[in-house]
Amino acid sequence: MSDPAADEEHAGDTADEAEVRQANRRFYDAFEARDLDAMSDVWAHGDRVSCTHPGWRTLHGWGAVSASWFALFGGPQPLQFILTNERVAVEGRAAWVTVDENLISAEGSGTVAAMNVFVRTGDGWRLVAHHGSAVAPQGQRDS
Amino acid sequence: MSDPAADEEHAGDTADEAEVRQANRRFYDAFEARDLDAMSDVWAHGDRVSCTHPGWRTLHGWGAVSASWFALFGGPQPLQFILTNERVAVEGRAAWVTVDENLISAEGSGTVAAMNVFVRTGDGWRLVAHHGSAVAPQGQRDS
Repeated sequence: MSDPAADEEHAGDTADEAEVRQANRRFYDAFEARDLDAMSDVWAHGDRVSCTHPGWRTLHGWGAVSASWFALFGGPQPLQFILTNERVAVEGRAAWVTVDENLISAEGSGTVAAMNVFVRTGDGWRLVAHHGSAVAPQGQRDS
Repeated sequence: MSDPAADEEHAGDTADEAEVRQANRRFYDAFEARDLDAMSDVWAHGDRVSCTHPGWRTLHGWGAVSASWFALFGGPQPLQFILTNERVAVEGRAAWVTVDENLISAEGSGTVAAMNVFVRTGDGWRLVAHHGSAVAPQGQRDS
């Protein structure tokens, strides 16, 4: 997913924004690689983390969230993403990213609208909330 | 939607958590009342706000977001919500809320999993991002 042209676009990022963008990429790298250890490193661990996979109820706490990644990575369907419309906002020790996950899989393609919330810890920015939802083919288009 | 028993549950809230919870309730009150002025007061206004309605692409910026509420409130379908599983997390001047919107309308019922991000401004906590997604009937259940 490395894209020098995309990196160039973000030359105006603050240091925090650049770090959050890197943390967000690490999340999708771990997702694509189906790498549980890398995914675990991306997230904060604790009761307040949450994860809403497309069509799922929200899962609360690192135990339930990590179990969902274990289940997803054990599934039959490797995913590739092309990320577009990635926007980063930082507010003190917290940040949120909106991004479109353009999925390519053996079963077809589709777009998931995602929001990821990060918190700055002693070990850098960690994911505390992920929410993804499928964009309906007839859904409202971003203008 | 006022529920004294639910308020009792949150007696352990910090002052910030209580304020965020109030801001979150104001969002749903404005949504139910189809009150554009109240909805406008709930949100921060600016380029970085975003809104992802169920099945929609993410809308960016207050112009696009406010237009979507104008369109939704002009629609034929009043909505009522019963909010459950509301969880508030505060990190400095930012906060996020996960909540299940249990919808009751003339066309039936359903659950939308939502995440709302708030930022503390000089005028109190303001909504900067809303993301809602329909929970599939066969969707994974929260444990």
